[in-house]
Amino acid sequence: MSTATKSYAAPSATAPLAPLTIERRTPTEADVEIEILYCGVCHSDLHQARNEWGNSVFPVVPGHEIVGRVTSVGSGVTRFKVGDMAAVGCMVDSCRTCPNCKQGLEQYCDNNMTQTYNDDDRKYGGRTYGGYSERIVVDENYTLKIPSNLEAAAVAPLLCAGITTYSPLRHWKVTKGQKVGIVGLGGLGHMGLKFAHAFGAKVVLFTTSPGKAEDAKRLGADEVVLSKDAEAMQKHARSFDFILDCVSADHDINAYINLLKVDGTLTLVGAPEKPLAIGAFGLLMGRRSFAGSGIGGIAETQEMLDFCGEHNIVSDIEMIDIHQINDAYDRLLKSDVKYRFVIDMASLKK
Amino acid sequence: MSTATKSYAAPSATAPLAPLTIERRTPTEADVEIEILYCGVCHSDLHQARNEWGNSVFPVVPGHEIVGRVTSVGSGVTRFKVGDMAAVGCMVDSCRTCPNCKQGLEQYCDNNMTQTYNDDDRKYGGRTYGGYSERIVVDENYTLKIPSNLEAAAVAPLLCAGITTYSPLRHWKVTKGQKVGIVGLGGLGHMGLKFAHAFGAKVVLFTTSPGKAEDAKRLGADEVVLSKDAEAMQKHARSFDFILDCVSADHDINAYINLLKVDGTLTLVGAPEKPLAIGAFGLLMGRRSFAGSGIGGIAETQEMLDFCGEHNIVSDIEMIDIHQINDAYDRLLKSDVKYRFVIDMASLKK
Repeated sequence: MSTATKSYAAPSATAPLAPLTIERRTPTEADVEIEILYCGVCHSDLHQARNEWGNSVFPVVPGHEIVGRVTSVGSGVTRFKVGDMAAVGCMVDSCRTCPNCKQGLEQYCDNNMTQTYNDDDRKYGGRTYGGYSERIVVDENYTLKIPSNLEAAAVAPLLCAGITTYSPLRHWKVTKGQKVGIVGLGGLGHMGLKFAHAFGAKVVLFTTSPGKAEDAKRLGADEVVLSKDAEAMQKHARSFDFILDCVSADHDINAYINLLKVDGTLTLVGAPEKPLAIGAFGLLMGRRSFAGSGIGGIAETQEMLDFCGEHNIVSDIEMIDIHQINDAYDRLLKSDVKYRFVIDMASLKK
Repeated sequence: MSTATKSYAAPSATAPLAPLTIERRTPTEADVEIEILYCGVCHSDLHQARNEWGNSVFPVVPGHEIVGRVTSVGSGVTRFKVGDMAAVGCMVDSCRTCPNCKQGLEQYCDNNMTQTYNDDDRKYGGRTYGGYSERIVVDENYTLKIPSNLEAAAVAPLLCAGITTYSPLRHWKVTKGQKVGIVGLGGLGHMGLKFAHAFGAKVVLFTTSPGKAEDAKRLGADEVVLSKDAEAMQKHARSFDFILDCVSADHDINAYINLLKVDGTLTLVGAPEKPLAIGAFGLLMGRRSFAGSGIGGIAETQEMLDFCGEHNIVSDIEMIDIHQINDAYDRLLKSDVKYRFVIDMASLKK
């Protein structure tokens, strides 16, 4: 049993996104059916729509920053009822039995999480389709609650950009008294700024764009450094406890590694396609670490949303209609968005 | 006041090492004068003799794995007396006032440690000259004691190869119940094997040389994996708590990063000249870290030597005369040594 559902899909790596009708399963006992109100636009949507990671199976219905209203619940669902607001992030299932799942690190499931789109559906077969659609049906264990005081559209990007930056800042214990760098002011970086500031750190934003300084300060930066200014960079040598690198393009990581204190860590959350060239000496001469981090587990995503509710944190967004998505992708490539596109999914019904 | 001292030096990046008379200062109040009995041959001796790191000022007298007998002490020296055995490692001074020095991390001194050779002498001017020489004069605070039960010649390599592997295994808390990888079976790797085994871990050695399997097991490996055997590598995917990479040549780090568990760390202690190409996904998909570590502090070096005394750990060595040093360098480049050359410095007097 399934329900015909309007969506926007990439039919191939080279064709623009266009309307497509997909099927959603009728909710099982464990499921929540959500009418999607808003869906954020993540750079990985574009990567996968264009098969830039080489793992796309078409059609691809992107979207993993999903906020909506519950329209139906299975008989076993206890945490949601019809009419509740609900959210879905980057994953809709995982094996639930491996050590990582048991620790709440479902994103690192040894048997691979089931991603919200462009993935094999481990339980129901076929492929998963994301949030550029009218509705989605998800196991309640992979469905999040959102704080009622926040603007729903601006919550959507928290489900990926938010948790992707919140989780490493928490894991590496960023706190008051520390000096923390955020590299890049885009969808991820602007959330990194907000969280690092909220956690009490002294926050320095690194950017290649002089025009972003004022905005960065509004978003939580104590200082802004132009990464192309070698002298300005040198002033910060060996001074950072932690640096969160939010850049998805190829860039010189070594320049930032040299800004870390002894035992400091630079954590990458962007996903550059090409390998990064890392000099050994920058790591050796200070026992520094270059790490990576991917989204967060379900419990931590809920913790992040609750934290945002308490501290009134949302994403800075620009709302678009679904038929503007191809233009939005082009603008995304030019970093022409402050700081996250969110699709008003009501536009899909027009 | 100074003492003419026989040494072996590289006169330039392209000439072989040859005899050279250098001057050693008369011990000051704080100094210990040591007659050098044995000096280990580290790969970094060769790098610097040939200016492969671009930082050499010639002549270079290499050698930072020094064991000898105290022949004179300054009036303020309390920990050594004439006739004691003593050792000197990779550094002979540091600023002593920065936060790292104060924490016993002199090797990461914010004002740069004074290296035992090929460095500016911060206190007495001129250049530092290393252990390929008759004697050395060193501040007692940078001089180590060696356990009397160990064979002195085989202790020498502990001063660099030993501490370089001991320190990261301790810092990343390698212990019983863990699975630990050691990459490369050379001077560093063979010490890494001994320490990881002594710390109670299950130890897997990765090597490109099938002929090294038996020796690796004798040295402490529970298992040996040929790194070119993709199938054998794949069997260990996502299973290591920690990997110590002891390879100085260019090699594929990503293959090892993929063998780490979630939150695992691969630490590099070799110093490849060229930057290493690191794929973002291997780090992101498991919150893994790629780190570096350089030698250890003075207190930790003493701790390591004491640990070796208690557990009867020394380096496996091949003794050479000083006039064989150029041949030894050639053999080092072919990994033709089990596992560390140590120079019998009595040969310098012949």
